[in-house]
Amino acid sequence: MTNLLKTRSEHARLRLEVTQELEDIFARSRRTAEAYGPEFLGLWDLAADHAQGGKLIRPLLMLEMFEALGSNEPSASNRSEAVRIAAAIEVLHFAFLLHDDVIDGDLVRRGRPNLIGELATSSFDETHSDAAQHWAKSGAILAGDLLLSATHQLFARANVSGSLKERLLDLLEHTIFETTAGEFVDVGLSDGVIRSDLSTVLQMTGRKTACYSFELPLRAAVILSGGSQELERRLSTAGAHLGLAYQLQDDLLSTFGDAAAHGKDAYSDLREGKQTAIISFARMSNSWPSIEPDFADPQLSFERAEHLRDLLRECGAEDFVLGLIQEQLGAFYESLAVVNETASIPTRVRDVLLDLAARFEGRKS
Amino acid sequence: MTNLLKTRSEHARLRLEVTQELEDIFARSRRTAEAYGPEFLGLWDLAADHAQGGKLIRPLLMLEMFEALGSNEPSASNRSEAVRIAAAIEVLHFAFLLHDDVIDGDLVRRGRPNLIGELATSSFDETHSDAAQHWAKSGAILAGDLLLSATHQLFARANVSGSLKERLLDLLEHTIFETTAGEFVDVGLSDGVIRSDLSTVLQMTGRKTACYSFELPLRAAVILSGGSQELERRLSTAGAHLGLAYQLQDDLLSTFGDAAAHGKDAYSDLREGKQTAIISFARMSNSWPSIEPDFADPQLSFERAEHLRDLLRECGAEDFVLGLIQEQLGAFYESLAVVNETASIPTRVRDVLLDLAARFEGRKS
Repeated sequence: MTNLLKTRSEHARLRLEVTQELEDIFARSRRTAEAYGPEFLGLWDLAADHAQGGKLIRPLLMLEMFEALGSNEPSASNRSEAVRIAAAIEVLHFAFLLHDDVIDGDLVRRGRPNLIGELATSSFDETHSDAAQHWAKSGAILAGDLLLSATHQLFARANVSGSLKERLLDLLEHTIFETTAGEFVDVGLSDGVIRSDLSTVLQMTGRKTACYSFELPLRAAVILSGGSQELERRLSTAGAHLGLAYQLQDDLLSTFGDAAAHGKDAYSDLREGKQTAIISFARMSNSWPSIEPDFADPQLSFERAEHLRDLLRECGAEDFVLGLIQEQLGAFYESLAVVNETASIPTRVRDVLLDLAARFEGRKS
Repeated sequence: MTNLLKTRSEHARLRLEVTQELEDIFARSRRTAEAYGPEFLGLWDLAADHAQGGKLIRPLLMLEMFEALGSNEPSASNRSEAVRIAAAIEVLHFAFLLHDDVIDGDLVRRGRPNLIGELATSSFDETHSDAAQHWAKSGAILAGDLLLSATHQLFARANVSGSLKERLLDLLEHTIFETTAGEFVDVGLSDGVIRSDLSTVLQMTGRKTACYSFELPLRAAVILSGGSQELERRLSTAGAHLGLAYQLQDDLLSTFGDAAAHGKDAYSDLREGKQTAIISFARMSNSWPSIEPDFADPQLSFERAEHLRDLLRECGAEDFVLGLIQEQLGAFYESLAVVNETASIPTRVRDVLLDLAARFEGRKS
């Protein structure tokens, strides 16, 4: 109980630090944005507002891990650098979300209008007119570009030694390739350009989300604490399994969970024809002929969507994906096992990861 | 004559260096892209191919200026760094073009299908179907993200002293803010969110194009040669005037020039309702009531477009914009005047700029 309370107050402290850092980042550039007229300033303020709306899973994971690793570097300034990179990772996350929403045509995120939705409403009465949608989507493309640039600026200016800086830049480069490639394959699956088999879908899922959401913060924590590349690789593997489990759980929640809790459009995955492991399984089942006609129909009614969800459950897709999640969690636990004395994962580091995995159980959002 | 030949062969040498550097940049990441399947590799190869299709105005301007400035830094390695940054500026240019084409819905660039057009054709028979357009535009958004990231990586890894690195990163940050803000206002003007008066249009034009096309290469050259911030400011001012003149000339060519020479869709500016200085002037003229009905009509026929062009010429818009160009060139020449002994612009530097301005005369593309 004491331990739990300690964890909670530590979490609150870290959250406050990240929130403050994000505010500072956006406030600094707000002064720059002011020079470019009210519309551009409005775009910047909208971006700042929405970027602060997340659960901060990624920066908190990074900072928890950074503290668990302790610092092997002489400089104490690495602590403030870690907070800045943690905030940069949240900025990157939001940049990806913006372009993802443009690509998916989504207007809702985290249970309220996303930046696109708000931008359309703020300047047009007819928010679904061509001009309103064009203005809003263009704004989201440009805001994403600004935030992608801001992420790079924060990484490039990190006040760390030359070799750590290079590892940070390598990590960012790798992350952006993985995520972009994953997103491109995701689009290809939806548009029917790439064949939707289970292995392609699982690989895409890992790349599109697990990499930047789990591997990136874990590896950044190792680098900033001056940890070895071997440790970085081991945490990367653990993070990949955990990340895939997390994203599979996300897919389950989107289709079988409570929309009010997860905050996305109810059944938007089914309307958009999102190629998930759920769908890959259903495709191989006998029920596919009764599922296919309604799947990927943008006009799908709530009632038909509920029926579709029931069919997906009955054909065994939900259980199948639950099994995949268990598989990934198994591989995750295995990756934490001791290999040899020098390459072992410190106990506190292992505890952070085990804690995180435990928090997955029963999550609703 | 000897001088002209020398200039030509120097130009050819610089062009070769930039082309080779661009090839190296794309080849290095091609090995990374290979891991992500044939579709992503195809996207990367398309991007590499199209990024090499430009006139290399920006990197050539930077390198010419770098050579004219001579190096005040002890390290000779700055020369290869200059070539790399010059190539990075071309990569940034292409990243902007990609997102610009997505925003404008353009399918043609430099006289042939752009990346969007080719991506649609490569995977679909019905290239105008929703899925083909979605796939192609999403690919262009993601390719733009990759190249925007690549630009930052090249700047962040430049092998120069800490203070020069900081000036380079400041310059890149400023450039991206200016360009993005200019583009956002451009979209706002097209979508009717921002009132289209002449001063807004001129400011937008300067920000959207002149900044990254002229100020960026000139300032980067000063930084890499170890020149003073005062010189950087003076060349920035000269570049701003020259850049605005260049873009105004571009607008004239798009509407009144030869489409076969400039390589864009004939009259696409008129169909898209692009808010240029030409239109701002026409809006204030008596001819506007006969121009307005056809302006910004996506279905505008070639014949109606030709008629619109004639109306724009007759109302005096072409002459007015020619006058604006002369105004900017006048301000450019003035900015090159000697201020005092210490802040004077070296003769060779002035010659590069005067040469560039001279090349504007009579350009067709």
